[in-house]
Amino acid sequence: MTAADPARKPTLAVVGATGAVGTVMLDILSTRENVWGEIRLIASPRSAGKKLVVRGEEVEVIALSEEAFDGVDVAMFDVPDEVSAQWAPVAAARGAVAVDNSGAFRMDDDVPLVVPEVNAPAARNRPRGIISNPNCTTLSMIVALGALHAEFGLKELVVASYQAASGAGQPGVDTLRDQIAKVAGTELGTATGDLRAAVGDTGPFPAPLVLNAVPWAGSLKEGGWSSEELKVRNESRKILGLPDLRVSATCVRIPVITTHSLAVHAVFENEVSVERAHGILREAPGVVLYDNPGAGEFPTPNDVVGTDPTWVGRVRRAVDDPLALDLFLCGDNLRKGAALNTAQIAELIAAELSAG
Amino acid sequence: MTAADPARKPTLAVVGATGAVGTVMLDILSTRENVWGEIRLIASPRSAGKKLVVRGEEVEVIALSEEAFDGVDVAMFDVPDEVSAQWAPVAAARGAVAVDNSGAFRMDDDVPLVVPEVNAPAARNRPRGIISNPNCTTLSMIVALGALHAEFGLKELVVASYQAASGAGQPGVDTLRDQIAKVAGTELGTATGDLRAAVGDTGPFPAPLVLNAVPWAGSLKEGGWSSEELKVRNESRKILGLPDLRVSATCVRIPVITTHSLAVHAVFENEVSVERAHGILREAPGVVLYDNPGAGEFPTPNDVVGTDPTWVGRVRRAVDDPLALDLFLCGDNLRKGAALNTAQIAELIAAELSAG
Repeated sequence: MTAADPARKPTLAVVGATGAVGTVMLDILSTRENVWGEIRLIASPRSAGKKLVVRGEEVEVIALSEEAFDGVDVAMFDVPDEVSAQWAPVAAARGAVAVDNSGAFRMDDDVPLVVPEVNAPAARNRPRGIISNPNCTTLSMIVALGALHAEFGLKELVVASYQAASGAGQPGVDTLRDQIAKVAGTELGTATGDLRAAVGDTGPFPAPLVLNAVPWAGSLKEGGWSSEELKVRNESRKILGLPDLRVSATCVRIPVITTHSLAVHAVFENEVSVERAHGILREAPGVVLYDNPGAGEFPTPNDVVGTDPTWVGRVRRAVDDPLALDLFLCGDNLRKGAALNTAQIAELIAAELSAG
Repeated sequence: MTAADPARKPTLAVVGATGAVGTVMLDILSTRENVWGEIRLIASPRSAGKKLVVRGEEVEVIALSEEAFDGVDVAMFDVPDEVSAQWAPVAAARGAVAVDNSGAFRMDDDVPLVVPEVNAPAARNRPRGIISNPNCTTLSMIVALGALHAEFGLKELVVASYQAASGAGQPGVDTLRDQIAKVAGTELGTATGDLRAAVGDTGPFPAPLVLNAVPWAGSLKEGGWSSEELKVRNESRKILGLPDLRVSATCVRIPVITTHSLAVHAVFENEVSVERAHGILREAPGVVLYDNPGAGEFPTPNDVVGTDPTWVGRVRRAVDDPLALDLFLCGDNLRKGAALNTAQIAELIAAELSAG
């Protein structure tokens, strides 16, 4: 790593600056505390020369290359797995700390998987010079669950997701918008298979998403599990440092633009109470407790989209199990679920470099 | 009860014939085996005189009154709780067996709660002359779970629902259609609270439903539970005859017109296997197994709407628990979830009367 000059603010590179997460990242970097010196924007050669606004100033996008990382202290990657797999080690070899939002390194034993509110110290142990950012579904619940775990001791999670179209990137959003236009003013959605016939191209989804729920995200793994479901299990275990945590997840896409929701049944070592859980969630950094259903207060994706925290509502103690809580959580999958957590990890490194 | 004349086909009354479920009921009665003599259509006085088609013939709707039940053998009720509470006992007192689709009698110890594929014999023990039809959410999973229970012995259910707008009746459907028209061609759904501002009236839902997920159905009960969630627990226990079954449900409304979906984590007494579960679900009456995600085969609401069975897919053994299965189920909430199951119960009684 480049020896830090305490007088100099560190240089940040944003790789994938023109993508869906990259766009949110520039917005986030423009509103958070300004810890960075230069912010360098990097993308594929076909985006080079494009000008994007960050911190109120136009910055020209440069093409991804080895030299693009010269002088960079922290390089954030918001690119597909295979691009990260190739280029994050290049950035690290050039002296940058790579903070990667792809799935390429998350389960690598030599790469920490970091959620600053939960396991910030893990970021210091990075033998490959790479830190991974968790999957957006895991990130939509893990801050709140980490806080509850610290109090009650987590033993088991049963998770059902309500995932947004933008989890599949801009093509996901465009597909859903197009399908909405096609069903507006019609009676579609009431006869078997009528949507499949009417909407045509299903874009990145394996079935029509409008007026539907699609219980599939990712690729097929052993035992009928989807890759998304196993990520929730494996990443939760790694972030919480609980290699024996029992996790069952069912991941389902629903017609929402942005913000993932999760119904979580969490079983703990110790007896739980709603009152104590409320107290913990009210104090937890990065969490908003919004739980008063009698007054119509529970999180929905549209309350949460565009905000940073994990919102938690519908906190109930299981009627038949004093060790279990049932919760409904929402998190903006493009912010905390991707760009924000990456930015927070990068800021941890900036603070470390400043501290010398 | 009226003494049955084996030469005469029994008389059926449909109370609430003009409602959302009543409409589906007339369709179902027109396509199932014709076990009924007279089919009498009953509704509120303001609908009296209206003509509806059943079994290909126009039938005039008559107003609800005590005399309307004279000569009726089986009276099906698809009306609000308070109407059933008043009139089902009237029908029973006039000699009919009342089959009630409201929540008025479901937890009454003297009223059986019947799903013919699961507990048909329970229908014979009806001291009040009333039989209840379960809630649509319970009905969307219980046939498949009953079959698995018979093999493996059910111990615990964790349920997350993806419920359709028509669960809130025609006003629910109209509200969602109206909201879809309002968001089509816009960028709505991407800024905090923009839907709440744009869609105005949320109809029977406590928040905008389009491009959203609303974790609330029913009324507030003790401990922060919704009435819908407790129905799933209490009705599952009663139907399966398992008073100690542990059940946690989180009920969520999503922007789908018709067909409820459920992600279910089911824990059994005995070790499970996907192969054995597949075998059971393939053989179970009233169940369609649709589970080959590698070929894009899993149920979605739009595959299932308008069909009778419970569809089951995504059958997985929990990675960390050899006693647990994870499943995704879909059922048309207006058919098996309401009208069809009521018709099936009525047919059980018709067969009983014919048998003398």
